[in-house]
Amino acid sequence: MANKIFMILTLVGVPLSVIGSLMHWPSTILFVIYCLTIIALASFMGRATESLAVVAGPRIGGLLNATFGNAVELIISIFALKEGLIGVVLASLTGSVIGNLLLVAGLSFFIGGIKYKRQLFNVYDARHNSGLLMFAIIVAFVIPEVFSMEMNEQKTLNLSVGISIILIALYLAALFFKLVSHRGVYQSETEGTDHEKEEPEWSKGKAVAILFAATIAVAYVSENLVHTFEVVAESFGWTELFIGVIIVAIVGNAAEHASAIILAYKNKMDIAVEIAVGSTLQIAMFVAPVLVLVSLFFPTSMPLVFTLPELVAMVSAVLVTVIISNDGETNWFEGLTLLAAYFIMGIGFYLL
Amino acid sequence: MANKIFMILTLVGVPLSVIGSLMHWPSTILFVIYCLTIIALASFMGRATESLAVVAGPRIGGLLNATFGNAVELIISIFALKEGLIGVVLASLTGSVIGNLLLVAGLSFFIGGIKYKRQLFNVYDARHNSGLLMFAIIVAFVIPEVFSMEMNEQKTLNLSVGISIILIALYLAALFFKLVSHRGVYQSETEGTDHEKEEPEWSKGKAVAILFAATIAVAYVSENLVHTFEVVAESFGWTELFIGVIIVAIVGNAAEHASAIILAYKNKMDIAVEIAVGSTLQIAMFVAPVLVLVSLFFPTSMPLVFTLPELVAMVSAVLVTVIISNDGETNWFEGLTLLAAYFIMGIGFYLL
Amino acid sequence: MANKIFMILTLVGVPLSVIGSLMHWPSTILFVIYCLTIIALASFMGRATESLAVVAGPRIGGLLNATFGNAVELIISIFALKEGLIGVVLASLTGSVIGNLLLVAGLSFFIGGIKYKRQLFNVYDARHNSGLLMFAIIVAFVIPEVFSMEMNEQKTLNLSVGISIILIALYLAALFFKLVSHRGVYQSETEGTDHEKEEPEWSKGKAVAILFAATIAVAYVSENLVHTFEVVAESFGWTELFIGVIIVAIVGNAAEHASAIILAYKNKMDIAVEIAVGSTLQIAMFVAPVLVLVSLFFPTSMPLVFTLPELVAMVSAVLVTVIISNDGETNWFEGLTLLAAYFIMGIGFYLL
Repeated sequence: MANKIFMILTLVGVPLSVIGSLMHWPSTILFVIYCLTIIALASFMGRATESLAVVAGPRIGGLLNATFGNAVELIISIFALKEGLIGVVLASLTGSVIGNLLLVAGLSFFIGGIKYKRQLFNVYDARHNSGLLMFAIIVAFVIPEVFSMEMNEQKTLNLSVGISIILIALYLAALFFKLVSHRGVYQSETEGTDHEKEEPEWSKGKAVAILFAATIAVAYVSENLVHTFEVVAESFGWTELFIGVIIVAIVGNAAEHASAIILAYKNKMDIAVEIAVGSTLQIAMFVAPVLVLVSLFFPTSMPLVFTLPELVAMVSAVLVTVIISNDGETNWFEGLTLLAAYFIMGIGFYLL
Repeated sequence: MANKIFMILTLVGVPLSVIGSLMHWPSTILFVIYCLTIIALASFMGRATESLAVVAGPRIGGLLNATFGNAVELIISIFALKEGLIGVVLASLTGSVIGNLLLVAGLSFFIGGIKYKRQLFNVYDARHNSGLLMFAIIVAFVIPEVFSMEMNEQKTLNLSVGISIILIALYLAALFFKLVSHRGVYQSETEGTDHEKEEPEWSKGKAVAILFAATIAVAYVSENLVHTFEVVAESFGWTELFIGVIIVAIVGNAAEHASAIILAYKNKMDIAVEIAVGSTLQIAMFVAPVLVLVSLFFPTSMPLVFTLPELVAMVSAVLVTVIISNDGETNWFEGLTLLAAYFIMGIGFYLL
Repeated sequence: MANKIFMILTLVGVPLSVIGSLMHWPSTILFVIYCLTIIALASFMGRATESLAVVAGPRIGGLLNATFGNAVELIISIFALKEGLIGVVLASLTGSVIGNLLLVAGLSFFIGGIKYKRQLFNVYDARHNSGLLMFAIIVAFVIPEVFSMEMNEQKTLNLSVGISIILIALYLAALFFKLVSHRGVYQSETEGTDHEKEEPEWSKGKAVAILFAATIAVAYVSENLVHTFEVVAESFGWTELFIGVIIVAIVGNAAEHASAIILAYKNKMDIAVEIAVGSTLQIAMFVAPVLVLVSLFFPTSMPLVFTLPELVAMVSAVLVTVIISNDGETNWFEGLTLLAAYFIMGIGFYLL
């Protein structure tokens, strides 16, 4: 039933988005069309992820979802770097980190928790993710911030490059650990039995194809939506920082939002958490360092040094998420707490 | 036996306190009378809390104890705000947070731990409280501190008001979660059986009445004691900050101290922890934001921006408490560690 | 087999070290001789620790290993303090803390984890250590850093002395707790059975004697090695801070490194962790405060105030270690994460 509505919305929304943007319809109308289309497309991404998770496990399903979602972000950021917009790129990285940790995870814990009193997910994955979040944000992002205070520009850049290489190497090692070396070692008992019972909606190939196609379409519509927002934002009097950290991040992570919430509502917390936290880790340990390295080939290089408010927001978000998610159990109140933290940071960036 | 002594102490101490303060006896004599009277009154508050906990569970018992204790603090602080003493109010909020987390919890873990090798309390409550402590202190107090560095006064106040509303809303949601939505969901097995066996000392109505009357009396004596201290402090050469953060907080939380320690000594750790941590959360998530909002009606408004030493003391206190209490188990050494942290901060504020 | 090689290496290496240093052989040759000798001697220390652990439990075994290792460091630091080299002493304390937490623990988790998929150690010890790490670094080191910003030199020193006394007192209390008051209370079941089966390689007296003799020899060779390094370092263009934090710490903790890794490889994680984390705690809670107190008798007193990069490196290291080790379980990837954190800090101090 809901699937049919999303199907119709997609079949109508995608052509309308293309026509509307070519014919320069008014921003407000385009805004509504884009948003509905993204939600409809995201529902396909959620179903594709779910099908993949049935076949290949929640880790690979979540990883693919995060990767397709972040690929878009990586491409847009490279274009921004080329134009020397370092501040915008760092702001949107910050926005992705706090958006995924607090908004995506918060919404899925909250909405899932309204239906189920207690929701469980793999406690080993939770701890593994906690360790990596602490490493990526509290070590790899904090160290250059503090050390660069007493360094010149070149040394700051050298430090950033060194840290970026270590981040990418450890991210690849983490994939090897999860998918090869310790695959299934930390699997919870419920996980295994769940999968045997269930039939995937789509075959592996079809699911990947739909995930790929929907990602392209979402990327196209998202980029147009971002341009709409710039106009809308100006009339609302929003600052560039607020747009970068909050607005772009919400739209840019629309796919993660929709997928994680749908899966949480179906009590598939393993994948929902993997999307939210896995996407954060991919941003912090892969997208951010790759952007640092890519920026070396452009006129303006990007050091891994955030503004103090950005860094403190990320550190706070990580500490709250780690404490809340470390027990492998959630409820609606834990989701609300994460959302409240997000609102506080949103107000902060709005006023800054 | 002990109860009789406290009864006599109360019946003698309260009239003596009134007479002594009216007749302006020497400060040192008044100091001794006040202290003994508060301890005796606090023993009644502890017994009332215990009776309520038998009937209504440790959460409601602890909540009522914290509420009556903090009501006094709220009233005194509003009077201070009216006179524009923002620094004093922020200092006493800081003092309540670190006093409850480190001194009240520390003393009850230590004294309880001398009698019992290992003391257990509900691990779900511990985690729930940890999440809220991280949210309240690490997000809601740290964000305005850092963001306000680059903001003008008006924006800082706007941010403070926004955060205050979110804090109060989440605190009310937390009460709804604990007392309605998830009441009994996370109850440990021992809790349920303990209560069925036990008979409350006093009826529900009598316990609330005694809690109420003892709170009023403690408030009256505490306020007089504070005035004594100002004189005593001057002769000792103490700074205003030390009095605000350490001395006022110890006296103002006398009720929580006594109740929590008595209950820990009886191995009722669920209520003891609920008093110490619950009181901290009420201060940080209800009393502090209410004071920010109330201050808007006074000539001088109070932003939610502490001094750096105050903030760092609270953040350190939260991190140590969360790590120590998160396993739902205590012993005398964990209590001593919290006390040692309190002493370090005490020396710091004394020398500042 | 390996034991025989180490025996020969020791019997050849120690005399060669003495002769070479007296005859002023070239630094590079001496460097190789010293390193091989230290590794060979450290293998004896590891075997002695293991024998003691069989007889007296992993806590006493680890404690003795840490104590002998840190005694050397204490003596060298006192000589440095006498010459007023406060910066060097604080740097080498920092280096010991992050070296033990990230490099020693990281290497033993990694190498042990290559052989065993999952390695377990006593979860109660892990939590006990986490609480103390948070107390020592996040409270006792952070508070003087922040509070001293608004203090004059004398008050900073007074605060440092007060904190030092509290640190030493709590460290002694921790020993009393572990070895007397709660000895065996938190013992895991596997621990007990393991020990009954096993025969110690050496008797208690012989093990202590070998540990003592090997420590003296390592101290002698280490000090010579440090002098070599100063020459080597200059030709490499290393800064004094990098030598103090990274190079001296690696060499100075060679014994801990070797012992912990050998024991991790034999899946004796209880002792391996006790050496790494126990040694850190001894540095932070005993060696550092003793040095502060001893410095009062010298012309230049040392306050407990690190540079900001040093403090942030220690705080980050503690937070990552606590999150990773708190579940009492390790694997190669957790070890790699700690090593990656160490490399990031190493690059930072190298460039500073």
